Amino acid sequence: MLDYLFYLVPVASIIALFFAWLFYHRMMKESEGTVTMKEIAQYVREGAIAYLKQQYKVVGIVFIVLSLFFVFLAYGLGVQNPWVPFAFLTGGFFSALAGYIGMRTATYASARTANAVSRSLNAGLKIAFRSGAVMGLTVVGLGLLDISLWWLILRAFVQEATESQSLVVITTTMLTFGMGASTQALFARVGGGIYTKAADVGADIVGKVEQDIPEDDPRNPATIADNVGDNVGDVAGMGADLYESYCGSILATMALGASAYFGNVDAQMKAIFAPMLIAAVGVVLSVLGIFAVRTKDGAGLKQLLGSLSLGTNLSASLIAVFTFLVFYLLGFENWWQLSLSVIAGLLAGVIIGKSAEYYTSHSYKPTQKIAESSKTGPATLIIRGIGVGMISTAIPVVTVGVAILLAYGFATGFRFSADQLSYGLYGISIAAVGMLSTLGITLATDSYGPIADNAGGNAQMSNLDPIVRERTDVLDALGNTTAATGKGFAIGSAALTALALLASYIEEIKIGFKHLGETIEGVADISAATIPQIVAHYDINLMNPIVLTGIFIGAMLAFLFCGLTMNAVGRAAQKMVMEVRRQFREIAGILEGKQRPDYTSCVRISTKAAQQEMIFPSLLAIAAPILIGIFLGPAGVVGLLVGALAAGFILAIFLANSGGAWDNAKKYVEEGHLGGKHSECHKATIVGDTVGDPFKDTSGPSLNILIKLMSMVSIVMAGLTVMLHL
Amino acid sequence: MLDYLFYLVPVASIIALFFAWLFYHRMMKESEGTVTMKEIAQYVREGAIAYLKQQYKVVGIVFIVLSLFFVFLAYGLGVQNPWVPFAFLTGGFFSALAGYIGMRTATYASARTANAVSRSLNAGLKIAFRSGAVMGLTVVGLGLLDISLWWLILRAFVQEATESQSLVVITTTMLTFGMGASTQALFARVGGGIYTKAADVGADIVGKVEQDIPEDDPRNPATIADNVGDNVGDVAGMGADLYESYCGSILATMALGASAYFGNVDAQMKAIFAPMLIAAVGVVLSVLGIFAVRTKDGAGLKQLLGSLSLGTNLSASLIAVFTFLVFYLLGFENWWQLSLSVIAGLLAGVIIGKSAEYYTSHSYKPTQKIAESSKTGPATLIIRGIGVGMISTAIPVVTVGVAILLAYGFATGFRFSADQLSYGLYGISIAAVGMLSTLGITLATDSYGPIADNAGGNAQMSNLDPIVRERTDVLDALGNTTAATGKGFAIGSAALTALALLASYIEEIKIGFKHLGETIEGVADISAATIPQIVAHYDINLMNPIVLTGIFIGAMLAFLFCGLTMNAVGRAAQKMVMEVRRQFREIAGILEGKQRPDYTSCVRISTKAAQQEMIFPSLLAIAAPILIGIFLGPAGVVGLLVGALAAGFILAIFLANSGGAWDNAKKYVEEGHLGGKHSECHKATIVGDTVGDPFKDTSGPSLNILIKLMSMVSIVMAGLTVMLHL
Repeated sequence: MLDYLFYLVPVASIIALFFAWLFYHRMMKESEGTVTMKEIAQYVREGAIAYLKQQYKVVGIVFIVLSLFFVFLAYGLGVQNPWVPFAFLTGGFFSALAGYIGMRTATYASARTANAVSRSLNAGLKIAFRSGAVMGLTVVGLGLLDISLWWLILRAFVQEATESQSLVVITTTMLTFGMGASTQALFARVGGGIYTKAADVGADIVGKVEQDIPEDDPRNPATIADNVGDNVGDVAGMGADLYESYCGSILATMALGASAYFGNVDAQMKAIFAPMLIAAVGVVLSVLGIFAVRTKDGAGLKQLLGSLSLGTNLSASLIAVFTFLVFYLLGFENWWQLSLSVIAGLLAGVIIGKSAEYYTSHSYKPTQKIAESSKTGPATLIIRGIGVGMISTAIPVVTVGVAILLAYGFATGFRFSADQLSYGLYGISIAAVGMLSTLGITLATDSYGPIADNAGGNAQMSNLDPIVRERTDVLDALGNTTAATGKGFAIGSAALTALALLASYIEEIKIGFKHLGETIEGVADISAATIPQIVAHYDINLMNPIVLTGIFIGAMLAFLFCGLTMNAVGRAAQKMVMEVRRQFREIAGILEGKQRPDYTSCVRISTKAAQQEMIFPSLLAIAAPILIGIFLGPAGVVGLLVGALAAGFILAIFLANSGGAWDNAKKYVEEGHLGGKHSECHKATIVGDTVGDPFKDTSGPSLNILIKLMSMVSIVMAGLTVMLHL
Repeated sequence: MLDYLFYLVPVASIIALFFAWLFYHRMMKESEGTVTMKEIAQYVREGAIAYLKQQYKVVGIVFIVLSLFFVFLAYGLGVQNPWVPFAFLTGGFFSALAGYIGMRTATYASARTANAVSRSLNAGLKIAFRSGAVMGLTVVGLGLLDISLWWLILRAFVQEATESQSLVVITTTMLTFGMGASTQALFARVGGGIYTKAADVGADIVGKVEQDIPEDDPRNPATIADNVGDNVGDVAGMGADLYESYCGSILATMALGASAYFGNVDAQMKAIFAPMLIAAVGVVLSVLGIFAVRTKDGAGLKQLLGSLSLGTNLSASLIAVFTFLVFYLLGFENWWQLSLSVIAGLLAGVIIGKSAEYYTSHSYKPTQKIAESSKTGPATLIIRGIGVGMISTAIPVVTVGVAILLAYGFATGFRFSADQLSYGLYGISIAAVGMLSTLGITLATDSYGPIADNAGGNAQMSNLDPIVRERTDVLDALGNTTAATGKGFAIGSAALTALALLASYIEEIKIGFKHLGETIEGVADISAATIPQIVAHYDINLMNPIVLTGIFIGAMLAFLFCGLTMNAVGRAAQKMVMEVRRQFREIAGILEGKQRPDYTSCVRISTKAAQQEMIFPSLLAIAAPILIGIFLGPAGVVGLLVGALAAGFILAIFLANSGGAWDNAKKYVEEGHLGGKHSECHKATIVGDTVGDPFKDTSGPSLNILIKLMSMVSIVMAGLTVMLHL
C-alpha cells in the first residue's frame, strides 16, 4: 500500500513538468510582436543567458572543489556517507536547471505579454501568469523528481544492519542534496541580485534623477542591463531559492520522521511518506489553482488581484482538506493533530504574506506615511522607511513563533517535554512542508511580476502605443504587490525550513558518531540516542559560553553578509553611473534619440561586478560553519545556526519591507499625490526607491539562502565536526 | 582584613565625588564670557533643566507604579525579597542624579569653554575635558556609593539560615537596584535621544539644506533646541546608560561570586569583594589619568587625541597591574588567571573602541569611500554607509566572542564542562567589570564631546571671532572620534554586562523557588542547586521550541524598538521642519538677522515629542519580559534575553558606526575634499548625516539599555515567573 502511494510522488512530478511544458509551448506559439520588439527581447534574452552561463561556470568550479572535498570526507576520512558527493551534485544541477528553464521562459514571455496586452489586459495577464507558472511548476516538478529518484536509488542500494537504520541513513543522505541546491541558490541570488540592482540603481540615478527621462527609456544605456537583471535576479534567483526551501523542508521532514520513529519501520515509512505525499497533492492542486486564474476583459487592478488570490486561496484550502486525507490514509493515530500542524504552517504563510502587503502597499497607512515624509526631503523619507521596515518585523516573527509552538504542540498533544521532542520537531518540520505545498502557484504569481515588468520595458523601448505601457503598468503594479507577498512567503518558509534543518543537524551528529564507530556516555547504540541526549552531551544550552559565542557570531554573519552584498551593489552602481554619464557626455545624439547608446558596455559592467562580488560573501557563508565546527564543535555550530537564523530572518523581513515600501511610496507620488511626478517629493522618493533596491532585491533575499545554506553546510560537515569534538 | 578592605570602596566613591566637586568648582570660577554668551548659555541651560524636570516627572510616575507592583510581589505574593522596592528606587534616584549633575555641569561649561578657547586651545580643552570628568566621576562615585550603602545595610539586616545563604540573598537583592537604574536610563536615553535628534535633524534640513546657513546659526529657530538636545541626550542620557552598566556589571559579578562559591563563606566574600575593589582601584586610577590629560599650547588634533589617549591608556594599564594585586591580596588561588579574565575584558574594550574609530573616522578608508560615493548622489551614499556599518559589526562581535571564551577559560583552566560553569560565568562577569573599570576617564572623554560641540554653538551664536569657532571645531572633531570610541565601549560593556545578568537570572530563579518553599526534582536544597540543574529543569536548550520562540521574539524586539524610536525621530523632525519653515516664512527679517526667531516654540516641539514618544518603546521593554515570563516561563525568558542581546548588540554597533561614518564623511567633504562645502557631494553627505542622526544618537544607544533593562526586569520578575512555571 505504502509503496504504491509513493508512486504518486513521481507522478505528481511528471504532472508538474507536463503542465510546465504545456504552458511554455502555448506561450511560444504567441506572436512576439513587431521587429523592434523581437529585437529587444532578443537582446535581453541573450544578455540573460550569457550571464547565466558565466555564473554557472563559476559555480561549476565551486562545485568541483566542494565535491572533491566531500569525496575526501566520505572515502578518505570515512566520516560521511559515500553517496553524499553525488547527492550534492544533483541538488546543484536541478537547482540550476530550474533557474535556467524559468528564466528562459520569462525572456521569451515578456515581448509576447507586451504584444498580447495591446489586444487586451486579460490576454497579457494570461501569458505572463502562465509563463510564471512554468517556473513554479518546474521548481516543484524537478524537486519531486530529484527526491523520487534518490529515494528509489538509495532504497535499492543502502543496506544497514536493520531496516530501521537503513531508513535513517537514506533520509539523512538525501538531505545532503539540499546543500547542492543551497550552494547554487546562494550564488544565483547573490550574483543575480548584484547584477540586477547595479543596473537598476545606475539606470535610475542617471536616467530618472539627473536626465529626467522615464524608466526603461531606450535612450538610457543601462536599460537593457536593467531588464536582463530582472530576469537573472528576480526569476532565476528566486526560483533557485525556493527550489531549495521546497526540497529542504521535505527532506528535513523525512529525516526527522525516520529518526523520531526509529525502531518502528512501519511508522518510519509513514512519517517519511507524509511530507512527500503532501507535496505531491500540493502540486496537483497548484495546477488546478493556476487554471482558476482568469479575468474578464476590462478587469481593473482589484479584479486582477482578486483573480490571483482566488487561485492561491483555492489551492491552499484544498491542500488543507487533502492533508487530513493523507494523514488519515497513512494511518497515523494522531492524523488530525498532525494535519493541524500542517495547517499552522499554511496559515502562517498566508499571514506573513498579508503583513508584507500591509506594510508595503500604498493602499495602506505605513507606505502613505513614508511617502508623506518626503515633504521634508529624502533624509526623513529614509528614516521613516527604515523605521517602518523594522516595525514590520513584529507580525511575521510573532506569527512564526506561534506557528512553531502550535505545530509542535499539535504533534505532541502540547507536552513540551524532552521525551516528546522528536515528535514535536517533526510537527514543526511538516508545518514548513505545509507552508511550501502551494509553491507551484505562489511561485507562479511571483515570477509573473518580472515578466510583466519586462513586458513594460519592451513596450517602452519599442515605442508602442502608450496604452500598452499603461496596461503593462497595471500588471506591473499587481506584480509589486504579489512580489512583496512572495518575499514574505520565501522568508517565512526559509525560517521554518532552517529550524527543521537545525533538528536534522543533531540527527546528523549521530550519523557522524556511527561512521566513527563511537558513541556517547551512557548510550549503547548511538543510533538509538535521542536528541536530548546529544544536546546534553554537547551542553547545547544557553549558559554555555561556546553556544553564546556561536549565537553572537551567527547573528553577526547575517549583518556582515548583508553589508558585503549592499556594498557590492553600491560599488557596481557607482561604476554604472559613471559609464552612463560618460555615454551621455561623449556619444552625441543619444538624448535626442538619434544615436543608439552602447548597451553592451553596461551589460558588461553588471556581469563583471556580479561575478566578482558574489564570490566572497558566498564563500564566507560556506566557510563560517566549517570553521566554527572545527574550532567550537557542535555546540558552537548550533549557536551559530540559531544566531544566523534569528538575525537573518528578521533582517530579511526588515530589508524586504523597507525596500518594498519605498518603491511603492514612489509609485504613490507618481500616481499624483504630494505633487506627483517631477515634484520635490518625487525626487525624494526616487532616492528612497534607489536605497531600497539592494535592500529588497539583493541583501534581503540572499539572507533566506544564507540561513539555509549554513545549516546545510553544517549538516554535511557534521561528521568532520564530530571527529574533532567527540 | 576583608572588612577593612571593603572600606576602600566608599573611600574611592568619596574620592571620585570630591574630584567631581573640585573640577566643577574650578570650572565655575572661569568667566562665562560676553553678555551674549552668558545669555545663550542661560537659554540652553534653562531649556535642558526644564526638559529634565519634565522627564523626571514622567519617569517618577512610572517608578511609583512599578514600586507598588514590587511591593505587591514582595509583600503580597511573597515571591520577592522585601528590600527590592527600595533598592529599585535608589537605583533610579542615583541614576537620575548622576545624569542631572553631569548635564548641569555641561551646560555651565560650554560658554566657559568657548571663552577659554579664545585665549588658547589648551585652556579650552582643559575646561571641557575636566567638566566631562565631572560626569565620569559622578557616575562612578554615585555608583560605588549606592553599592556601599546597600552592602552595609543588608549586611546589618539580612539574616538567613546560614551565612552563606545570607550572602546570596544580599547580592541578589542588590542586583535589583540595577533595574531602577536601567529603567531611568532607558527613559533618559530614549527621551533624550528623540529630543536631540528631532531638533538636530529639523535644524539641519531647513538650515543647512534649504537655506544654506551654517550650523548653529542664531538665525535658525531650532538652534537652541539643538544645543539643549546635545546636553539632554548625549550627556544626561549617556551618563545614565553607563551608570547602569557600571553598577550592573559589579552587582552581577557579586551575585555570581556569592553563588559560585556557595557553602564557603570566606571564598564567597572574596568573590564578592573582588569586583568592588577592582572598581574602587579603577576610580582612583581614573582620577590619575584625568590629571595626565594636558597639552602644550598650539597642539594640533593629533596631539590632542594623543593626550586624551595617554590619559585613558595610563589608567587602563595601571588598572591591569593593580588587578593582579587585588586578586593576590584577596588570596585567590587562581589569582593571576582571574586577573587575565579582567584583562581580557579591558582589552576587548580597547579593541572595540579602536574598531569604532577605524570605521567612523575620516582618516581611514571606510569613511572616505562612503564620502566618495556621494559623487553619485545621496542614494549610493546611504547604501554604502549602511553596508559599511553592517560590515563593521564583525570585529566587535568576534572580539566579544573571544573575550567571553578567554574570560571563561582563564577562570576555569579552560575546562568547558558543566561543573565549571559557575566559575566560568564569574570570569565573564569580572571581565565586564574590567572593561568598565576605566569608566571614570572614558566617560570624561565622552562627555567632553557635547561640551565642545556646545561651545562651538555658543561661539557661533555669539558672533565671536571666527578663530574661536575654528578652534572649537578642532575640539569638536576630536569629540566625534572619542564619541565613536565611547559608543563602542558602551555597547561592548552592555553586551558583557547583559551576559552576566543572564547568568544572574538563573540564580534569581533559585531564589524564586526558595521564596515559594519549593525545589526541583532531585535537589534537596534549592539553594545548593547548580546552574546546569536549573537549565536542565527548564530545558533551556536550543532544541526547545519555547527557547527558540523566545530567541526570535527577543531579536525582533530589538528591531521593533529601533523602528519605534527611529519613527519617533522622523515624526518629530518633520514637525520641527514645518515649524522652522513657518518661522522663516512668517516672521519677517529672521534671515537678515534683524528679528530674533522664536526659539521656545522649537524647544516646545522637541520636549513634547520626546515626552510622548518615549513612553511606548520604554513600556514595551518593560512589558515584554514580564509577558514572556508569564506565558513561556523561564525557558522563554532566557531565549528572549539571548535573542535581544545578540540582535541588539549587533544592531547597536551597526547603527552607531553607520551614523558616525556619515557624520564624518560630511566633515571630510567640508574639509575641502570632493568639491567641499556647498558642492553636490556636500549636499549628499548632509542627507547621510541626517539619516545617521537617529542611528547613532537615538536608536543605537537606546539598544544598550534595552538589553540590560530586559535582563533586569526578568531578574526582578523571576519570582513571579517561577510561581507560574514551577
